[in-house]
Amino acid sequence: MADDWNRRYRGRIVDVDVERVTLPNGESADLEVVRHPGGAAVVALDDADRVCLLRQYRHAVGDWLWELPAGKLEPNEPPMATARRELQEEAGVTAATWTPLGEVVSSPGVFTEVIHLFAARGLSFGAADTEAHEVLEVHWVPVAEALEWARDGTIRDAKTLAGLCRLESHGR
Amino acid sequence: MADDWNRRYRGRIVDVDVERVTLPNGESADLEVVRHPGGAAVVALDDADRVCLLRQYRHAVGDWLWELPAGKLEPNEPPMATARRELQEEAGVTAATWTPLGEVVSSPGVFTEVIHLFAARGLSFGAADTEAHEVLEVHWVPVAEALEWARDGTIRDAKTLAGLCRLESHGR
Repeated sequence: MADDWNRRYRGRIVDVDVERVTLPNGESADLEVVRHPGGAAVVALDDADRVCLLRQYRHAVGDWLWELPAGKLEPNEPPMATARRELQEEAGVTAATWTPLGEVVSSPGVFTEVIHLFAARGLSFGAADTEAHEVLEVHWVPVAEALEWARDGTIRDAKTLAGLCRLESHGR
Repeated sequence: MADDWNRRYRGRIVDVDVERVTLPNGESADLEVVRHPGGAAVVALDDADRVCLLRQYRHAVGDWLWELPAGKLEPNEPPMATARRELQEEAGVTAATWTPLGEVVSSPGVFTEVIHLFAARGLSFGAADTEAHEVLEVHWVPVAEALEWARDGTIRDAKTLAGLCRLESHGR
């Protein structure tokens, strides 16, 4: 964790530090680090082997993306609790069975974000509870088609590519 | 692109803006945007169908990661030129055949980074030219083993998962 003296920006989602570090090769460097609390994302599969994908507008890239339900960790929130909360809020779905699919590091050159991936099965469907700034549609896509979208570039979001990639080794 | 009046941090690699935007649903929101120039990453395959993976220390996540050769776009640099440059600098390798593998968006909730992915074949081997702050080892891993590492969590870096995922649909 950075000391406050090298904090250059304190924001709502991220902070930016510039840190003087000694690297494993003995070199020292001033490195820019964008600190993010991390997140969780869910590969939710229904009984027809369809996966929940959100069609979501993302201002940072100025485009609509296909993404897994996902969100930031709240302070002290275990990643699986984040995953459960986001699946319910974004898609209105609860799940009986949760399986960890490991982690993905979004952009390790500068960004601390780690996203914890989960598969969810045994789904129950209710009402979503999205926030006003979340612009998204909920879709259910056959897993084979979603994997094809990952390969052909239709899916470009990193955590979504990672979750679908990991799914293939977990009991499919 | 953001106007300067809402730029909150101007850094060496990233800038941070807070932007008042009108979303497609008509809601307005103040969104934090971490601007990054984007990058390129290379899935380089030798004649024995081994892929070049770097074992690289990443201060932002405090760990060693397995990663594709990759780097930031220089101003006005076409992504394929970045890919060629980074493969040579980091691994000492040049390639005769380049195939685009699409893009990956690292973390679209807050971060503008888009990484352009390429496959490279027909390799020639020379001397690497890494910078002092790049702490890395060059490894050549059979593609089947790298794909297993993507699935079992040994590989956690997003661009590397994306590149290996895309590779499976491009002539393997």
